Amino acid sequence: MIYLTRKEHFNAAHKLFNPNWTDEQNEAVFGKCANKNWHGHNFDLYVTLEGTPDSETGFVMDLKKMSNIIKREVIDILDHSNINMDVPFMAGKMASTENIAMGIWNQLEKHLTAENYRLYSIKLYETERNFVEYFGPQGRR
Amino acid sequence: MIYLTRKEHFNAAHKLFNPNWTDEQNEAVFGKCANKNWHGHNFDLYVTLEGTPDSETGFVMDLKKMSNIIKREVIDILDHSNINMDVPFMAGKMASTENIAMGIWNQLEKHLTAENYRLYSIKLYETERNFVEYFGPQGRR
Amino acid sequence: MIYLTRKEHFNAAHKLFNPNWTDEQNEAVFGKCANKNWHGHNFDLYVTLEGTPDSETGFVMDLKKMSNIIKREVIDILDHSNINMDVPFMAGKMASTENIAMGIWNQLEKHLTAENYRLYSIKLYETERNFVEYFGPQGRR
Amino acid sequence: MIYLTRKEHFNAAHKLFNPNWTDEQNEAVFGKCANKNWHGHNFDLYVTLEGTPDSETGFVMDLKKMSNIIKREVIDILDHSNINMDVPFMAGKMASTENIAMGIWNQLEKHLTAENYRLYSIKLYETERNFVEYFGPQGRR
Amino acid sequence: MIYLTRKEHFNAAHKLFNPNWTDEQNEAVFGKCANKNWHGHNFDLYVTLEGTPDSETGFVMDLKKMSNIIKREVIDILDHSNINMDVPFMAGKMASTENIAMGIWNQLEKHLTAENYRLYSIKLYETERNFVEYFGPQGRR
Amino acid sequence: MIYLTRKEHFNAAHKLFNPNWTDEQNEAVFGKCANKNWHGHNFDLYVTLEGTPDSETGFVMDLKKMSNIIKREVIDILDHSNINMDVPFMAGKMASTENIAMGIWNQLEKHLTAENYRLYSIKLYETERNFVEYFGPQGRR
Repeated sequence: MIYLTRKEHFNAAHKLFNPNWTDEQNEAVFGKCANKNWHGHNFDLYVTLEGTPDSETGFVMDLKKMSNIIKREVIDILDHSNINMDVPFMAGKMASTENIAMGIWNQLEKHLTAENYRLYSIKLYETERNFVEYFGPQGRR
Repeated sequence: MIYLTRKEHFNAAHKLFNPNWTDEQNEAVFGKCANKNWHGHNFDLYVTLEGTPDSETGFVMDLKKMSNIIKREVIDILDHSNINMDVPFMAGKMASTENIAMGIWNQLEKHLTAENYRLYSIKLYETERNFVEYFGPQGRR
Repeated sequence: MIYLTRKEHFNAAHKLFNPNWTDEQNEAVFGKCANKNWHGHNFDLYVTLEGTPDSETGFVMDLKKMSNIIKREVIDILDHSNINMDVPFMAGKMASTENIAMGIWNQLEKHLTAENYRLYSIKLYETERNFVEYFGPQGRR
Repeated sequence: MIYLTRKEHFNAAHKLFNPNWTDEQNEAVFGKCANKNWHGHNFDLYVTLEGTPDSETGFVMDLKKMSNIIKREVIDILDHSNINMDVPFMAGKMASTENIAMGIWNQLEKHLTAENYRLYSIKLYETERNFVEYFGPQGRR
Repeated sequence: MIYLTRKEHFNAAHKLFNPNWTDEQNEAVFGKCANKNWHGHNFDLYVTLEGTPDSETGFVMDLKKMSNIIKREVIDILDHSNINMDVPFMAGKMASTENIAMGIWNQLEKHLTAENYRLYSIKLYETERNFVEYFGPQGRR
Repeated sequence: MIYLTRKEHFNAAHKLFNPNWTDEQNEAVFGKCANKNWHGHNFDLYVTLEGTPDSETGFVMDLKKMSNIIKREVIDILDHSNINMDVPFMAGKMASTENIAMGIWNQLEKHLTAENYRLYSIKLYETERNFVEYFGPQGRR
């Protein structure tokens, strides 16, 4: 087994705001992140596959194909978007980095599974200092 | 003369949208950057002073004081903001990186001038790949 | 399970010097790192929690609270310190990156444990090229 | 157990070209990477040991000794080389990042094993956006 | 005047070899860089314009158009190339970073000149530790 | 004219403490930086030459020779040192980043001057967020 990672990037607006709470509760819990007029980030996304290299190519997966799938299923939807308003797979969810990473996993899993590899992890940086890593619903193996 | 730089950071939403144009014109010129629901960035800001070190401290300026001024005059206003809607010094201007950098210069110039130093440049990264540098209305000297 | 990481930073002096050895032995084993007048580093610290997001907030843990705990228990003690002389939790220990990381784990573990999360790992960079990662006394799980 | 990592660097030329295929097949699968005149990269290599710190030194392993071994067994062979033509341990293999990482593991394993530590992983960046990680033939433990 | 920079990237092979010299002379002067089988790098390219923002867009130049011109005139030619063999604008020149930067200036200058801006500088990183900056044949102004 | 830069690195301890002042004055002005037991940093140093490439080599200066001179005149003296106690060219000076950069200029100027190049600037990072740039006693030209 070897682990292959591709880094992609998107810029988006979001806010942290729980619609079941008052403005005061949102302000108390989320502070500036609850700004009703939104704020935004440059998100860095690392997608990792676990697999075995193909004997003819030496590749776990062709990185250009992998990049194209990530772009089609994730980046084209999230880049220059408002995560709370524009992204179908985040509808009705808090736009936390944790939830975005889990949503990205769900977008990608079935497209990044083949005989010799499977999706292993999603690592998502909201800023250089804050990031999450998700290994799917069955957890780190 | 020696040049002293402090790096600060803010996260904000914006869009590129000219209100004198139709939606179609905005879309044609600004593409995804015109998304009416906003997008956002992690901005990196470098503020540079030109000056001579004080003989008692060895400092052009105390970096803690410099950082506090940048925070009070710029970061507290821009961080977790919507640049088009929330930032008085950007009101009525296109929220391009060029214009934000010039706005930051105007916010800081009078607070970063003293006997032994003056504001020299503002460098603003919108993403790791796109940035501008501004040397004030008199240009690079 | 999802893994949430916060990056913090401290600057400190240290030396690698075993008081049970002669100066010659220290010089032979530690080289320049044994300089009796100290040297120092900008340390980058990554603290990772393992947990499940809260359904109301979408957070494993509020990053501002997490950052405040790391600052209070670790950064306020280590930043601008001499690790050999000023840091109670390193007293009597070699100031290697390995031992500092384990000391930081002990400082943080009880403050970063709750119903829905626990401390998972401490990653400590001494330089961009040298770093350690520690998963607690029970090892990587 | 604690994990100690050293970062090293090498610059090399390579191409992705399967000699059992026609030029057209190589072009179709590898695109620009099959350029018969080669291309190249700055590779970043992270070597990680798993071990317990020595009680006298606080070290899992002396990083200078670790760096010297990596230089002798890997960097001196790969740096400023043509990976397809000049590197004995890659002879007859596709020069994919996956295969280079596995070749580096084989070069290092026996030299980075001792009573208190063993080689844990090889992480190899071909570019900032493409990298692989390998944990040996027995896989991640 | 404000300065707008776009970062692009290419991977290429090259060698430093003066055909007027013997192999021994080349080896003596260029060391490993003269390897007859080539080596390579990930080059980072920063292109800077000097100009005034357009009042309707807030832009010195549309970064997408700027990026497309750099790709067409420079990146498509250099990326995944052998700089000594494949690049018309480097034919007959030593493939030093200095000469590549000057060649890139010549490729771009006429395409990055307009009423409100002109090409200001080319900054080219061969590695993170080695880079050059060129301001055109008239020098830094 | 073209500008050639080499990045080097050193780790050192220092404190900011004016011996003509009381401890209280030092504490009031320098805060934690006055810790009598020292603190330290990983310093990044960028040395830039201004020159014209040699027609035979394509080089302003051979980077290996340039690196060796910087190591001999600067890095071997500063690395793993206490800047206040161990560094002859800093004796009797405040160990501010400004003064260290000016000291490095003086160490290097006469060794990095030749027919086709001269020392142009010293850029010194104390941390990723604080740095200075010095162009010599005659200032930026």
